[in-house]
Formats: sequence, structure tokens, C-alpha cells
Amino acid sequence: MEEIIGIFAGIFTTIAAVPQIYRAWKTKKVDDVSPKMFFILILGVLLWTVYGVMKQDAPIIITNGISTLLNITMFILIFKYKKQEK
Amino acid sequence: MEEIIGIFAGIFTTIAAVPQIYRAWKTKKVDDVSPKMFFILILGVLLWTVYGVMKQDAPIIITNGISTLLNITMFILIFKYKKQEK
Repeated sequence: MEEIIGIFAGIFTTIAAVPQIYRAWKTKKVDDVSPKMFFILILGVLLWTVYGVMKQDAPIIITNGISTLLNITMFILIFKYKKQEK
Repeated sequence: MEEIIGIFAGIFTTIAAVPQIYRAWKTKKVDDVSPKMFFILILGVLLWTVYGVMKQDAPIIITNGISTLLNITMFILIFKYKKQEK
């Protein structure tokens, strides 16, 4: 039972960035999105990935590895679509 | 060493929503933020909290409990400041 809940928890927290990436890519607008949020998220999931490697724990590596790539994608989109500051 | 990396990873992924909440609260603009992202995140961290309770793992409960509250706060702000759809 814990196993199943853990799997769904992992899937949800891993894929959460996808609709945000899709929205940014479709609208090309990111003004209200916090780049700091994604920067801190990237640091966090990157450290979780390192933690997974040290503990040799495949689920931690896979979910956080995917999260790292997704959050980096969003971070790049933020800078790509950001309006020039006045 | 794993311990320290895990603590920092947990702190970063937990507090990441704070700058987004602050930005939304300050600008009162959330048009480019994906409500789906925060909805999925809430489901995910809520399930992680349940997982932590079942495993009686305090760090999982605390970090994901805080994340749940922060992401719910952001989700509420999205609906509070959302412009009417045309």
C-alpha cells in the first residue's frame, strides 16, 4: 500500500512541471512565473538526484533526474520568453 | 554526507514555491502561471505526506506537509488574481 502511494506521489511531483512548460511554450508568456522558484527547484531535485546516486536508489534517481530536466527546460523558457525589464 | 545532501535537497524543494507566492502576492498577476502545475504538485506532496505518515518518517511528513500548505496557498492566489476568461 505504501508502495502504491509512493509511486503515485513520485509520478505527480515529477510531471507537475509539464503543464507549466506547455503553457509557456504555447503562450510564449512567462512574466508572472518566478525564475527563482525554478532555480531553487532545480537545485533541490539535482541534490535529490545526487542523494539517489549515493544511496544507489533507482526510483529517487529516475524521478528526480526527470524533474531536473523538466525544470531546466522551464527555466530556459523563462529566459527565452521574458520581456525586457524596463 | 548523504544526510547533509538530503537535508539541503529537502529544504530547496520545500521552499521553492515561496518566491512564486511572493511574486503573485506582490504583482497580483498570475496569468502565465499554470494552475494545473500546482494542482498536480498538491496531489503529489499530499500523497508524499500520507506516505510519510504510513512509514512514520518525520522528515518526509514535515517537508511535504509544508510543501502542501505552500502549494495550496499559491493555488488559491491563482484563482484570486486570475483574470476573467474572455
